[in-house]
Amino acid sequence: MSLSNPKSPIPVAILGATGTVGQRFIHLLDGHPWFRVVALTGSARRQGQRYGEAVHWLLSEPLPAWAAEMPLLPTEPGSLNGAALAFSALPSDIAREVEPQLAARGVWVCSNASAYRREPDVPILLPEINAGHTAVLRQQQAHRGWKGGIVTNSNCTSSGLSVVLKALDDAFGLESAFVVSMQAISGAGYPGVASLDIVGNVLPYIGGEEAKVEWEPRKILGAVAPEGIRLADFRISAHTNRVPVVNGHTVVASVALKRAPADPEEAIRALEAYQPPEAARGLPSTPRPVIVVRREPDRPQPRLDALTGGGMTTVVGRVRPDPIWDLKFVAVSHNTVRGAAGGAVYNAELLVAQGWV
Amino acid sequence: MSLSNPKSPIPVAILGATGTVGQRFIHLLDGHPWFRVVALTGSARRQGQRYGEAVHWLLSEPLPAWAAEMPLLPTEPGSLNGAALAFSALPSDIAREVEPQLAARGVWVCSNASAYRREPDVPILLPEINAGHTAVLRQQQAHRGWKGGIVTNSNCTSSGLSVVLKALDDAFGLESAFVVSMQAISGAGYPGVASLDIVGNVLPYIGGEEAKVEWEPRKILGAVAPEGIRLADFRISAHTNRVPVVNGHTVVASVALKRAPADPEEAIRALEAYQPPEAARGLPSTPRPVIVVRREPDRPQPRLDALTGGGMTTVVGRVRPDPIWDLKFVAVSHNTVRGAAGGAVYNAELLVAQGWV
Amino acid sequence: MSLSNPKSPIPVAILGATGTVGQRFIHLLDGHPWFRVVALTGSARRQGQRYGEAVHWLLSEPLPAWAAEMPLLPTEPGSLNGAALAFSALPSDIAREVEPQLAARGVWVCSNASAYRREPDVPILLPEINAGHTAVLRQQQAHRGWKGGIVTNSNCTSSGLSVVLKALDDAFGLESAFVVSMQAISGAGYPGVASLDIVGNVLPYIGGEEAKVEWEPRKILGAVAPEGIRLADFRISAHTNRVPVVNGHTVVASVALKRAPADPEEAIRALEAYQPPEAARGLPSTPRPVIVVRREPDRPQPRLDALTGGGMTTVVGRVRPDPIWDLKFVAVSHNTVRGAAGGAVYNAELLVAQGWV
Amino acid sequence: MSLSNPKSPIPVAILGATGTVGQRFIHLLDGHPWFRVVALTGSARRQGQRYGEAVHWLLSEPLPAWAAEMPLLPTEPGSLNGAALAFSALPSDIAREVEPQLAARGVWVCSNASAYRREPDVPILLPEINAGHTAVLRQQQAHRGWKGGIVTNSNCTSSGLSVVLKALDDAFGLESAFVVSMQAISGAGYPGVASLDIVGNVLPYIGGEEAKVEWEPRKILGAVAPEGIRLADFRISAHTNRVPVVNGHTVVASVALKRAPADPEEAIRALEAYQPPEAARGLPSTPRPVIVVRREPDRPQPRLDALTGGGMTTVVGRVRPDPIWDLKFVAVSHNTVRGAAGGAVYNAELLVAQGWV
Repeated sequence: MSLSNPKSPIPVAILGATGTVGQRFIHLLDGHPWFRVVALTGSARRQGQRYGEAVHWLLSEPLPAWAAEMPLLPTEPGSLNGAALAFSALPSDIAREVEPQLAARGVWVCSNASAYRREPDVPILLPEINAGHTAVLRQQQAHRGWKGGIVTNSNCTSSGLSVVLKALDDAFGLESAFVVSMQAISGAGYPGVASLDIVGNVLPYIGGEEAKVEWEPRKILGAVAPEGIRLADFRISAHTNRVPVVNGHTVVASVALKRAPADPEEAIRALEAYQPPEAARGLPSTPRPVIVVRREPDRPQPRLDALTGGGMTTVVGRVRPDPIWDLKFVAVSHNTVRGAAGGAVYNAELLVAQGWV
Repeated sequence: MSLSNPKSPIPVAILGATGTVGQRFIHLLDGHPWFRVVALTGSARRQGQRYGEAVHWLLSEPLPAWAAEMPLLPTEPGSLNGAALAFSALPSDIAREVEPQLAARGVWVCSNASAYRREPDVPILLPEINAGHTAVLRQQQAHRGWKGGIVTNSNCTSSGLSVVLKALDDAFGLESAFVVSMQAISGAGYPGVASLDIVGNVLPYIGGEEAKVEWEPRKILGAVAPEGIRLADFRISAHTNRVPVVNGHTVVASVALKRAPADPEEAIRALEAYQPPEAARGLPSTPRPVIVVRREPDRPQPRLDALTGGGMTTVVGRVRPDPIWDLKFVAVSHNTVRGAAGGAVYNAELLVAQGWV
Repeated sequence: MSLSNPKSPIPVAILGATGTVGQRFIHLLDGHPWFRVVALTGSARRQGQRYGEAVHWLLSEPLPAWAAEMPLLPTEPGSLNGAALAFSALPSDIAREVEPQLAARGVWVCSNASAYRREPDVPILLPEINAGHTAVLRQQQAHRGWKGGIVTNSNCTSSGLSVVLKALDDAFGLESAFVVSMQAISGAGYPGVASLDIVGNVLPYIGGEEAKVEWEPRKILGAVAPEGIRLADFRISAHTNRVPVVNGHTVVASVALKRAPADPEEAIRALEAYQPPEAARGLPSTPRPVIVVRREPDRPQPRLDALTGGGMTTVVGRVRPDPIWDLKFVAVSHNTVRGAAGGAVYNAELLVAQGWV
Repeated sequence: MSLSNPKSPIPVAILGATGTVGQRFIHLLDGHPWFRVVALTGSARRQGQRYGEAVHWLLSEPLPAWAAEMPLLPTEPGSLNGAALAFSALPSDIAREVEPQLAARGVWVCSNASAYRREPDVPILLPEINAGHTAVLRQQQAHRGWKGGIVTNSNCTSSGLSVVLKALDDAFGLESAFVVSMQAISGAGYPGVASLDIVGNVLPYIGGEEAKVEWEPRKILGAVAPEGIRLADFRISAHTNRVPVVNGHTVVASVALKRAPADPEEAIRALEAYQPPEAARGLPSTPRPVIVVRREPDRPQPRLDALTGGGMTTVVGRVRPDPIWDLKFVAVSHNTVRGAAGGAVYNAELLVAQGWV
């Protein structure tokens, strides 16, 4: 498709570029075949500094030289140097204010913030699950009078979980899920979790997280309807925990299905066979493959498996019968790649491929 | 009760004294008001060494001088220096062989090994839950022709969990539970978990553990019947995980109850009001109290709460409604105290108080 | 000595009571035979709250009930409820302002802050090393017109190190020391070190720390002179690092001595024989013993040894020849007990025993 | 140079392929432009298994499919499938026996084992320092009657340290160094360090390590002489420690120099200007650059910097005056890449480029 190979690079901005998700955007956009970063924005007190001075770089991958030299700009519509796309790693309260201003002026905002995820006309987009949800963008533009638009990616725990639930729902019909997360510290940003709270410890609480994990997958697996995205009708109960892991969220789950698989192998086959919708295939960030199933008894593990498929693949293991419901499994997904910056870049690629941008 | 205050110290042995649970026995029996350690046994290749030479001491509490000087003896009936009670921290295969030999000769074995937990006439004893289960010891002695007997404590994850389930079952009737553990490395012994497997990581698998956690609480909360302990009829689905925590197992759970509490406060009141059976009160190791409920949103945490009540108390928090079933909560219990050595010492105290020893 | 056993409890205040050192003061003063806490002070935005509400308690030992119920007061001379002694866990800038105000009004301030450590008439007091340094308090009162006074304890890394250097200096004469610390996260307070900076990592830098470690031991081992404390004339080169350990600072050192010990055993004997000055013996917080030498090749370790002697003892190991200078060793000391709150309490006990308070 | 671009791939074997260093060899040789792996060897009890079954893969990079399918062969001269080069990750005792057998038959062994490092005619080769040391291979072949030969790489802590010492020695003349390491757990292999020994802890002891770190750099910076490599005449005093870091050894050092640099900047310039000998440049594994100097006060850190230059670069920081000697600094080097497998591959490339293979 010609649309999927833009001839000249598309100018993009990163909003909130100094945080951990902003850093991951820079890493993922370094050498991206379609996008060229033309603006980095940050908080007022750091403006005027070069990015390299302003940032406390925390990735083990080095800070690219081009980014180090860019000036840090204010997060304002007039400061994006003509970017057609904006990747937003803004705090939710600032996102709530700035993202619509950008959308109104014709910018396409691919947001990692939770500010608009609950709006029926704003998709929580995971292209390998619901590329068709971009259809609501017509409603979004019509209702709000925007020339651009906002798409969001999900909470970092919902993303890998939703991928697995989607594959199981397609094959067996999903009714209910108990899910317990063991989440990496990079999901809390910087400075984020204090070391005295997490070294040699577990924090059994992450503010606001359980409500997101119980609700977002229902929207992600929902359907486009006249009133916006209509929620899928399964139920989730979530316990979310923080553990001393740097990158990679681990989720264990028990699920009730409409039709029980004959055996775990049938479920494994369904997971391994899962394919993205046509529109979401072959993009630079398409997970290759979407799901990997490990057969070893002790996998997946976040330290070993989070980077599978460049961090875009969801790794599943321990698929086994559940003594109460139908199936148990473990899933690991990279929280700042598939669960944040990588997901937003994939969303942007879909918008380009579908001709929105 | 005069029985509960033995006039002269009762001689006891620790079997498998060099491992992590054996070390915890030494720490807990140091200064115990009723028991005096007269024999420490260990593996053949270390025999003849003083305990202080043979052990790789791993507790932050110092090795008591009396223990350091004791010789390490073979794990044989003839080597216990007249001990009336034996605390067994033996590996399961050795326990299977040695423990009945001791029971046959009149020794009371309080075992941390899993070898006999599945036998209907061997109680999995947690006095604060099921002190009356010692009634099956009559059957045990009769059937097996023993002059002593074997009582076991539960798996380290089942113990704290069973305490909470018991309090909820008494108040509301327990139907089902989904439980997910995040277990400390000390539960795996020494050398146990390799650091490359757990530093900055989660291991979503512990061999054989899920079967124990799904079954043991049903026996612990079961009833004495002519054929031995009859299992309670609720169901458990368990996911067990290892996390980089030194001491303290954390369990998160969702439960279905026969009668839903009006609100979480009713459940909290039931947990806080829980009392041990009469026979299990007032012993040196009785948890004081059995359950503590924390109201802070982010408690309990293993690093901060495992040592509550000297490590014998189960700490519960985040008691809240479950969107699918009735109730969710988090529980922390000390895996080598309440979940292993401390539980076995409490069992021994009960046997003394009830006049078995 | 009658002075060392005050008849009625001495009222004391804890300044900056909500931080990690403040919490340790509460833990150590819980049940103290001489002192009774009558005031807890904290930052302005928390005043009026009960301590139990205001504090984010981080110790694995439980918060005592008496402390939980106390109101949090402003850090002002008029708010100490008649305390004769104030334990200061204040930030340095606030300490600089408030501590002299208290001293002027007759309060004895035992400070953990670094604000006045460099003043020649303010002792850095470690009673087991330099109990006689309180002699400069006459000068302090005379010069400054105070009715009370200020004594400080050392930086948390300097304390254990100084104890070992003192014992070696007494026996062999100290010339130079290379010291490298691996410091626990609790030394940085709360929230302190961000988990993303330290989980699975080493931070080779602690702001301002190396200058303290290179200078403070020279004052601690110095002599009382007319102009105040005169520095000892050895030299220290320090590298200070943060490691993912909760409590316990580890220091490795190579030292040049005026007289080389015949062999490491001679040095070990000197360390084991070290005794506090007469005035510092027999107080409630006197380390028992001051130094423990471990013979195992892999000790001391912070997780296993920091709590030796209730956290007041310095544990030394790996005493061996140095291929360039004379001796190498490793020392572990509890950073919030001997290195902070426990040291300040010991200082206060000395002031009482000597009749200052 | 034509020699440096072999026309057809050179067949190579990996000896001891299942351990952590063996795994790193597979990762680094995956897609190597010159070498093709034709044999993987392992311990007797796993022979006959496919590598994918036999290995407990511990790298976060995935196991390459070609390696997973290869059979695990015995570690014998006859089992190398015609390999001209063998990368040895063997335990030292097995290396001592097998490596000479291979060399005798014409194989070039690039060994990570310490077995032959002390032999004067066996170079400890770090091409960016001492590419010319291959000259002793003539002596080695002559004396021992070998058709092939053995070159070793250094201990994982000596490697990064030697790089920095070499650059300083060239510029200022090195006299003495105090070095203290904080070493990653991957340096101890698998299962290696028990988690109970290192989670939340520091181990101040690594068996045999200090002797290696004090001696190896003197050979690495030594000179080719008729009797073999002659040691350089500086002195090192080392303290080696284990910390809970996965990859990346951190070394802090104080050095005495023949000529003091005018200021730290002069030393930094010397480090940044350091170039490998001509023969060691432009090879596939040549570090690019050899040394990076970071100016931030808190770098280098192992989690952030170990992978600089693909793990072959040594990262230095905190270059500052030493109050006793001349200079202090911190260096981080990747222990299983530059300090083990990557170093051995670089050595093999040098042997090919120089025409030995």
